[in-house]
This record gives sequence, C-alpha cells and structure tokens, in this order.
Amino acid sequence: MRASRGLGLQMVKDLVKQNERPKKIIATARNPATAEELQEITRSFTGVHIITLDVVSESSIHSASEEVASIVGKEGLNCLINNAAINISTDLKTVTVEAMMKTFESNAVAPLMVTKAFLPHLQAAAGQNTGMGVHRAAVINVSSILGSIQLNWGDGAQFKSYAYRTSKSALNMITRCLATDLEAEGILCLALHPGWVRTDMGGPQAPLTPEESISSLLSVISSLTEKEHGGYMDYSGNKLPW
Amino acid sequence: MRASRGLGLQMVKDLVKQNERPKKIIATARNPATAEELQEITRSFTGVHIITLDVVSESSIHSASEEVASIVGKEGLNCLINNAAINISTDLKTVTVEAMMKTFESNAVAPLMVTKAFLPHLQAAAGQNTGMGVHRAAVINVSSILGSIQLNWGDGAQFKSYAYRTSKSALNMITRCLATDLEAEGILCLALHPGWVRTDMGGPQAPLTPEESISSLLSVISSLTEKEHGGYMDYSGNKLPW
Ligand SMILES: NC(=O)c1ccc[n+]([C@@H]2O[C@H](COP(=O)([O-])OP(=O)(O)OC[C@H]3O[C@@H](n4cnc5c(N)ncnc54)[C@H](OP(=O)(O)O)[C@@H]3O)[C@@H](O)[C@H]2O)c1
Ligand SMILES: NC(=O)c1ccc[n+]([C@@H]2O[C@H](COP(=O)([O-])OP(=O)(O)OC[C@H]3O[C@@H](n4cnc5c(N)ncnc54)[C@H](OP(=O)(O)O)[C@@H]3O)[C@@H](O)[C@H]2O)c1
Repeated sequence: MRASRGLGLQMVKDLVKQNERPKKIIATARNPATAEELQEITRSFTGVHIITLDVVSESSIHSASEEVASIVGKEGLNCLINNAAINISTDLKTVTVEAMMKTFESNAVAPLMVTKAFLPHLQAAAGQNTGMGVHRAAVINVSSILGSIQLNWGDGAQFKSYAYRTSKSALNMITRCLATDLEAEGILCLALHPGWVRTDMGGPQAPLTPEESISSLLSVISSLTEKEHGGYMDYSGNKLPW
Repeated sequence: MRASRGLGLQMVKDLVKQNERPKKIIATARNPATAEELQEITRSFTGVHIITLDVVSESSIHSASEEVASIVGKEGLNCLINNAAINISTDLKTVTVEAMMKTFESNAVAPLMVTKAFLPHLQAAAGQNTGMGVHRAAVINVSSILGSIQLNWGDGAQFKSYAYRTSKSALNMITRCLATDLEAEGILCLALHPGWVRTDMGGPQAPLTPEESISSLLSVISSLTEKEHGGYMDYSGNKLPW
C-alpha cells in the first residue's frame, strides 16, 4: 500500500500493533528516504518492508513487483491495498484535459496496472487456500463515496470535482471488471470508501481521524468473505450504490 | 453530433426527414471531405451544416464552437449530442496504460470539453424558454449499457473491455456532474444507451439496425422533460442502473 503519509501510513501503524498481525507488511512510498515515520516503524517492528513505488511509472511498478516477489516468496501476497491517489480541484470552470487525464491515470489506471503486475503474487497466495477473503487473496481498491454516480445528486453533489469523481467511478468499474476476471482464481476484489478523514487530502474539516477510519476499515477488511466480492462499501461495512 | 458514419450519420438521415424537423442541423466530422453520405444529405436537404470537429483537439473544439456560433446566432443551440467514441479491445491481458488513457480522452474527457466550449450556445437557447427538454436546451451524452457498473456482473459481464467500460462509467459521472451544474440554467443533461447496433463499432452480430436504434432514440430525446434530467436511459426510455 502507499504509506508515506495519510491513510496508508495510518494503516501500517495499526497493522503492526494488531495481535494477529500479518507476518510481513510491505509499505510502499514514492520516496522511502523521506518517509520518516515509516522508517521509524521499521526500526521498532519486525517484518515491515518499505519498497519504492511510483504508481504511474511502469518501470517502477515492475521493479516493485520483483521486490515483492523476493519478500513474499512462494507464500505470495494475501492482500494488495491500492491506496495512492491525487485530488486536483476541478469544477466546471477550472477543469482541464490535463487535470482529467492525470487524475484518471493516478487514481484509476495505476491501481489496475499495479494489480496486473502483482497478480502472480496474489495467485500464489490464492493457490494455498480456499474460500474468499484476506486469509486467501484480496485486492482492495481505496475508492471514495465521491465516486458514486447515484449519490452525486442534491446534497451529495455539493463537492465539485470532475477529475476526482470521474476517476473514482472509473476505479469502481475497474474493481468490478477485476472481480469478474479474478473470481475463478479465488481473489476477492472490493472498492472501499474510507470515510471523510483528516489527512492532507481530506483537510482539517473532515469528521474522522485517520485512527477512526483505519481501525474501522481494517476490521471490515479482515472479515471480508465471498459475499462482499465485487462490491462497494464504506469503512463501516455499509454497501454503497454505484 | 459526430456524423461521418454509424449512429451519428443515421441520426442526421432521420432528422432531415422528420415532419417537425429542427430548422438547423449541425453535423460534425473529423474529415468532412471524406464524409460522402453526409455531403450528399446537404445537397438534398436545406439547413444541414457540416463542420469539422476532432473532439480530442482543443483547437478543433474552439474553431467548431465559433462555427456553431455563426450558424445558430442569437437563437443558440437547443441540443448537443456527444456521440463520438472509440472502442479499443482491452481484456485483463491486453489492457495497457495507453489504451486506457486514449479511450478515456475520446469517450469521457472530450464530451466534457465539447460541452464546456458549446455552453454559451446552449445558454443562449436556454434563455429563450422555460421548462426542460430539447425545446429549450439539452446535452445528450451517448453512453453505453457497458458503462453500468451495477450491470457488469454475471451475464452482464461477458463483454470484457477495461478501457471502454471505464470510459463510459466516467462519462456517466460527467453527465451527472454536468446535470447538477447546469440545472439552474435549465439545461437538461442525460446519458443515453443506443442499444447494441450494427455499426462499425457494434459489429454484424448486433440485434438492432441503426434505423431501429435511432428512430427509438430520437423519440426518447424529443419527449425529454425535467423528470429525465441527470438520468441514464436506454433507447427505449428504460432507466438503467449506474
Ligand atoms: N481523506 C479522505 O477524506 C478520503 C476520502 C475518500 C477517499 N479517500 C481515499 O483514500 C486514499 C488515501 O487518501 P489520503 O487521505 O491518505 O490522501 P493523502 O494524505 O493525500 O495521501 C495520498 C498518498 O498517495 C500517495 N501517492 C499519490 N500519487 C502517488 C504515486 N504516483 N505513486 C505513489 N504514491 C502516490 C502519496 O504519496 P507521497 O507521500 O509520495 O505524495 C500519499 O502517500 C486515496 O485513495 C483517497 O482518494 C480519502
Ligand atoms: N454500436 C453499438 O452497438 C453501440 C452500443 C452502445 C453505445 N454505442 C455508442 O454510440 C456512439 C456511436 O457509436 P457507433 O456505433 O456509431 O460507432 P462507430 O460506427 O464506430 O462511429 C464512431 C464515430 O465516432 C467518431 N469519432 C471517433 N473519434 C473521434 C474524434 N476524436 N473526433 C471526432 N469524431 C470521432 C468517428 O468518426 P470518423 O468517421 O472520423 O472515424 C465515427 O463517426 C458511441 O458513443 C458508442 O460508444 C454504440
């Protein structure tokens, strides 16, 4: 997962402290050297690996996938969390082709390409278990309620952003395509909204702290079954309309 | 509308023959010189204008908007139909960043940019009437049932195309954003699925002829009211889930 700051970082902080924590946690960052809090965690806890990943660079994805292989080995990867995203402010007046393209690339295309590249590791894990869930293999795409086309109406339409909203609807469609394609291999796919959270992206007015969002999100993730496969949920486990 | 071939061309063919046809019909083509059937129509019917438009070129959109202004004058534009699209075959194995980006640009970003550029003409028309519908001003985005995230499941998931499906979900979100933004000005916005039609894109196995699709589509378009504003429908007027 992308873990230099914000929700990704909080996820790592929570995971290392869990009683039944994953043996190996791989945190990614565009620039590990400057991800100081993350570095700090690797010094205090075992089994935490930081690898370099810029999700919009195909060569970076390729190298990261090779690093993951060398970390997880034959046991494979049980859970891929696609969390990196950008949000460029774009109302009808300010939206540009460039903002639309860049946001789509980071928020929708990148998670697809990372999933494609990491697929062998997920397949390796899936081959060792039955059922569906993080005990086997799962792809969690961190989406947003702002990607819900249905909810983008009335009060739900107050936050304007052509680029961000579109990219998250696209990510939801990608999640659903992946769910169909990976079902036979037992790989669960889900789009998850973390709530409105006080991070750099969410801003200071957001009602949730990263701690609140992530503790709830991780409990949803850990109890996923085939029933949730291909779905779109929020951090409390409530189903969202597409 | 994009009218060199396929559904766009059929729309012009039908429109010119209607009893209460629009006084002015503006057909666009990337390359009017080679759009022979369209040229033929302008020789047989009055009030049909062909203008050059490549929807992925900002300068082309700008010139086209100026041409539209000179054609419609103060009366403005009652209906903009964003019909141009591409479909690159992209399953999980073959999908590339380039295919995703190019399809998103043509099928989602371009309709947004064309709508932005043509907005003054739509506003001019909207200022002269009340209510909602093509008697006033409307933006019709030709979407696809393949953009429905909800229906992309089970039997509905047989057609695989990450790039095309994603672009049409994105277009649906754009339609919904536009609907919110343009409602106060009385401009109706709608996403419309034309059915599976025997065009270059639909292929020879499609169940509908262009004639069948377009006669149905035009009757839906002509009877739109505020009730349909911000919606997603098929050529028969049935509501589709996002
Ligand atoms: N916060 C909210 O209220 C909220 C609400 C709904 C959904 N979400 C979603 O939750 C996820 C996390 O958001 P957040 O609030 O933690 O955002 P954030 O504080 O802005 O952090 C974004 C993270 O994404 C990384 N990133 C961006 N582009 C990248 C790239 N090309 N390669 C690698 N990493 C990249 C950033 O890395 P650097 O540190 O290197 O810049 C950073 O770690 C996102 O998907 C967001 O859309 C957030
Ligand atoms: N056919 C179906 O079964 C079906 C089903 C669902 C939805 N749709 C949608 O219906 C619409 C029309 O499809 P169709 O079947 O008529 O497709 P088509 O036969 O492939 O025609 C596509 C049209 O789009 C134009 N176009 C593509 N890129 C363009 C660009 N950059 N600038 C300007 N024009 C461009 C093409 O112009 P050129 O002639 O210059 O290439 C052509 O006129 C599309 O939005 C499509 O997604 C079709």
